[in-house]
Amino acid sequence: MAYELFYWPGIQGRGEFVRLALEAAGAPYVDVARERGAGRGVAAMTAMLGGRATPFTPFAPPFLRDGGVIVSHVANILLYLGPRLKLAPEDEASRLFAHGLQLTITDFIFEVHDTHHPISIELYYEDQKPTAKKRAAAFVDERLPKFLTWLERTLKRSGGESLLARGFSYVDLSAFQVVCGLQYAFPHAMARIARRIPRLLELRARVAGRRGIAAYLASDRRLPFNEEGIFRHYGELDAPA
Amino acid sequence: MAYELFYWPGIQGRGEFVRLALEAAGAPYVDVARERGAGRGVAAMTAMLGGRATPFTPFAPPFLRDGGVIVSHVANILLYLGPRLKLAPEDEASRLFAHGLQLTITDFIFEVHDTHHPISIELYYEDQKPTAKKRAAAFVDERLPKFLTWLERTLKRSGGESLLARGFSYVDLSAFQVVCGLQYAFPHAMARIARRIPRLLELRARVAGRRGIAAYLASDRRLPFNEEGIFRHYGELDAPA
Repeated sequence: MAYELFYWPGIQGRGEFVRLALEAAGAPYVDVARERGAGRGVAAMTAMLGGRATPFTPFAPPFLRDGGVIVSHVANILLYLGPRLKLAPEDEASRLFAHGLQLTITDFIFEVHDTHHPISIELYYEDQKPTAKKRAAAFVDERLPKFLTWLERTLKRSGGESLLARGFSYVDLSAFQVVCGLQYAFPHAMARIARRIPRLLELRARVAGRRGIAAYLASDRRLPFNEEGIFRHYGELDAPA
Repeated sequence: MAYELFYWPGIQGRGEFVRLALEAAGAPYVDVARERGAGRGVAAMTAMLGGRATPFTPFAPPFLRDGGVIVSHVANILLYLGPRLKLAPEDEASRLFAHGLQLTITDFIFEVHDTHHPISIELYYEDQKPTAKKRAAAFVDERLPKFLTWLERTLKRSGGESLLARGFSYVDLSAFQVVCGLQYAFPHAMARIARRIPRLLELRARVAGRRGIAAYLASDRRLPFNEEGIFRHYGELDAPA
């Protein structure tokens, strides 16, 4: 039976990390809110968030349904799908490390999101722009380099081909998405840091060329980045050097 | 062999969620940075973060060492410890739900932290106080009620005694810590919302009275809340109604 992914239509957002794993593995899945029509699909999702998902009601999208199992949060979904899609290592120590890496990426994504919403997600970006400029400046100066060079060192320690020494995993797909998103949102900052993260940029290129991923990126299932998602390009948040 | 918990000394912080699980179960553990002397313990932790932890180098504390296994991130550590400490349900669907709940708590903790550090963790609170007031106001008005009433509904759905219908788990301990922390940091806001979260407040009281937890809370192992941790009390961020 096909996996059912519940996520907002119209953005890559957090759902994209799950889509990439499903696409890389060629797994059958339904992107509910997109494929069943935005109205009906979103209504189905909202009903589940409202408690119709039996005892296992999630707090927010994305969540995945696999028969009677409901899994919420990107990292949890990838933990669940990893072994099933052959995108996770087999030994426990490596799986725990992979999950820890994914949770570090989760934290980072949160910080990316806060660059354009530093005060409240209930306010428009335009209403918090002065603060966004301060937060984005701190992000670009401190957090982005800290996080990306840490991924670079992790790649170096593992041998350089993938983040886990045991081989390709869902974490590589998530790292790919992070780099793509940052290149879209902060092209100047990413150009400045490029020479410090050669392995990470090579990983990004390798992932883009993988069979399942290359086909996905060329399809209309891959939504473009836009200013409704996590990675948004606002020129005023990405000053030239 | 005793578990080794690596976390900053002097604050409850994220490490506290792990300490509560270990204490509730009466499990042997070493709180490395505190018990080996802050200097030596922190040096040991820093060395591991610097890559001496073999391939599984964490991004940040807290992390747990159990023999040859290293687990980083609170939710990952609790996922690992849950079955070992008999603080997790046995069936997979419930375990996935527990982990999803813990990850929602993780997100919420991030938002709590950002109330006093909305621009950068590299700046002092005093240097971002005007923004902190705005962020905290939005947090108290929107996010705190949204999150706590969701936990309340989850308790209601599960029968009211614990967040999982299957019985007491590490997630209840984390919910306890969240409520304690918010009562310390935002006493006015918590007083205002009290009548909307009766089950959650009862859960907090029940957890405080559990054998392992009551003894822990009365010991000097339980650090007091302070203005270096996640939950900080700044009067200007918690206006009376």
